[in-house]
Amino acid sequence: MKATVFAPGSVGNVGPGFDVLGLAVGGLGDTVTVELSDESRVIVRGRDAELIPTDPAKNAASIAANAMLRKCRTGFSPSRPRGPRDGLKPVLHCIVTLDKGLPMSGGIGGSAASSVAGAYAAALACGVTPSHDDVILAALEGEEFVSGRHLDNIAPITLGGLVLSRSIEPLDVIKLPTPPWSVVLARPNARVETKKARAILPKQWDLWPQQMANTAALIHAFATADGALARRALEDLYAEPRRAALIPRFDDIKRAALDAGAFGCSISGSGPTIFALTDDPEKCAAAMNIGDCEVRIAEIDHQGARPV
Amino acid sequence: MKATVFAPGSVGNVGPGFDVLGLAVGGLGDTVTVELSDESRVIVRGRDAELIPTDPAKNAASIAANAMLRKCRTGFSPSRPRGPRDGLKPVLHCIVTLDKGLPMSGGIGGSAASSVAGAYAAALACGVTPSHDDVILAALEGEEFVSGRHLDNIAPITLGGLVLSRSIEPLDVIKLPTPPWSVVLARPNARVETKKARAILPKQWDLWPQQMANTAALIHAFATADGALARRALEDLYAEPRRAALIPRFDDIKRAALDAGAFGCSISGSGPTIFALTDDPEKCAAAMNIGDCEVRIAEIDHQGARPV
Repeated sequence: MKATVFAPGSVGNVGPGFDVLGLAVGGLGDTVTVELSDESRVIVRGRDAELIPTDPAKNAASIAANAMLRKCRTGFSPSRPRGPRDGLKPVLHCIVTLDKGLPMSGGIGGSAASSVAGAYAAALACGVTPSHDDVILAALEGEEFVSGRHLDNIAPITLGGLVLSRSIEPLDVIKLPTPPWSVVLARPNARVETKKARAILPKQWDLWPQQMANTAALIHAFATADGALARRALEDLYAEPRRAALIPRFDDIKRAALDAGAFGCSISGSGPTIFALTDDPEKCAAAMNIGDCEVRIAEIDHQGARPV
Repeated sequence: MKATVFAPGSVGNVGPGFDVLGLAVGGLGDTVTVELSDESRVIVRGRDAELIPTDPAKNAASIAANAMLRKCRTGFSPSRPRGPRDGLKPVLHCIVTLDKGLPMSGGIGGSAASSVAGAYAAALACGVTPSHDDVILAALEGEEFVSGRHLDNIAPITLGGLVLSRSIEPLDVIKLPTPPWSVVLARPNARVETKKARAILPKQWDLWPQQMANTAALIHAFATADGALARRALEDLYAEPRRAALIPRFDDIKRAALDAGAFGCSISGSGPTIFALTDDPEKCAAAMNIGDCEVRIAEIDHQGARPV
C-alpha cells in the first residue's frame, strides 16, 4: 500500500532535438513515496522544497500519482494487461511524499522526475508493475500541468539513457544507443520557467530542415561514438539563440566547454543548466566553472526510474 | 580530355527527411560524357530528351560540368588538393553529351543525376579525381538552377546509399547504414515540377518537432533493420499532405503498398514517383501497380556515381 521510486534528472532537447530527444543523467534525482490513503496530501522535502506547491492538484508528483491511481482503478488498456488489479478495492486518495534532489526550474527535468517517480510509485503501491508506457502516460499529466505537453524529459527519465520520443499519440518512444561519454552540467545561479522560455521561441519554419538534419546526425554520432560529428551536429538553431540571453554567461561557458574539447554544448531543456558531452569530464568541468555557477560531472543514467 | 560517368537516381526526402535525406536507387540513371573543347555544346539523348534544354546555360549537366571546369582552373581548396592540376592549360569549354535514363520531372532525382554525372565527368576529363565534396558542390550549381538549393538527391547520388545532408555551408554529408531492403518505385503517368511542388508547401512550424522525430527514428530503423519502426516513422507531415493531390491515385497506391507489408511508402522527392521500402518487392510491386503507372523494383545503389 506504499512504495518509493527514485527518478534521475535528464537533459531535455540535447541541443537540436527540441521536445523529442532527451538524455537521463545520474547523480541527483527526485524520490517519491506514494501511500494509499483515505486522504490526499503532499509533503515536500529537500532542495527548493519551499517553492514546490503542496496542493495535490498543483503538484506534479501528485497529479501523476493520481493519474496512475485512476488507471489502476479503471484498468489498463486491454491489450496490455498486467499485475493483480482484479479485485482491488477502488483507491481514491494517496499521500505523496516528494524528496527533491533536483532544483526547481533548473532545466534538468525536475518536474518530469517528480512526475515519473510519482506515477511509478503509485502503480507499485497498488500492487501493479507498470509498463514504461503506463508510467510515461501518467507522468505526462503532471509534466503537462507544470511544464508542457512534451516527453523529452519524461521518456528518458522512465527508460534511462538517450530516448527519442517519436510520437505522443500514439505513444512511441525509442531508446537509442550511446557511447561511454560523460555529461558535464553547469547551472548558473538563475531560474528559467519552462513556460516562459517557450513563449519567446520563434514561430519560424524555415530553419527546421537543418534542425532536423542536426538531430538525425546527432543520434548517428551517438550510435557510432563519433565525437567530431556530435560536435558539428549538436547545434540548436531554434531555441538556443533565443534562450541564451536568459542564462548568465552562457556564451562564455559554452565557448569554454568547446575549447576544452567537448563533443557539443548547449542548454539543457529550457535552462539555465548548460550541458556538455565529453570524454574528459574533469577538464571540461574545470573549464565550465565560470561565474556564479554550480558544476557537476554526471554519467548517463542507463537504468531510469527505479524502486528503492 | 574526355570522360563518361553514370549516376543513379535517388529517392529524395525518404518520407519525413525533407531536403536532407536521400537514398540512391539502382537500375536507371543518367550517363554524361564531357569532352574538353573550344566550344560549349550540349547533346541530349534518351528518355524525355526532347524536353531537356540544350542551351549550356540552362542544362543541369552542363552547368555542373562548367562549375567543375572552373574549379579545375582556379584550383580546389588548399586544404584538399588532389590531382595533377598544376600546369594544365585553362579549359574554358566542353561538349556535354547527356544520355537520359531517368524521366524528367519524375521525382527520382533526374536533374541531380545529370548534375552529378556532369560534374564528375568534367573533373575526370581534366585529369582530376575529384573528392565527393568537390562533385557535390559543383553538381549543386546545376541542381539549384533546375530544382532548388538542396542536397537530398545530389549527396546520395554521389556517395551511394542512404545519405543525410546535415549542412550545405559548410558542406557536411553523412552516409548512413542501410539494411538489405528493396525499393519499389511506382510512377503514375504525370509530371510534377519541383519548383511548383515547393510553392504549395505550408509555412508552418509547429509540425516540425514531430517531423524531426520521424526522421531521427527512421535513420535508427535503417541502422537496426527495424521494419516495424520504419513503418511508423516513415510519415511525412510536411510535404506529403499537400503534394499527394498532384499525384494520380496516390492514396490507393500507398495503401496497397502498406497492405502488402511495405516498411513505409511516400512520395519520392516532389513526385510523382511513389516509393516503398520492403523485403518482399515482388508482392509490393504487384500491389502498387494501380492505374496508369510504371512500376519497377530497385535495389539500393551503394556505389553512387561512377566512371564508365
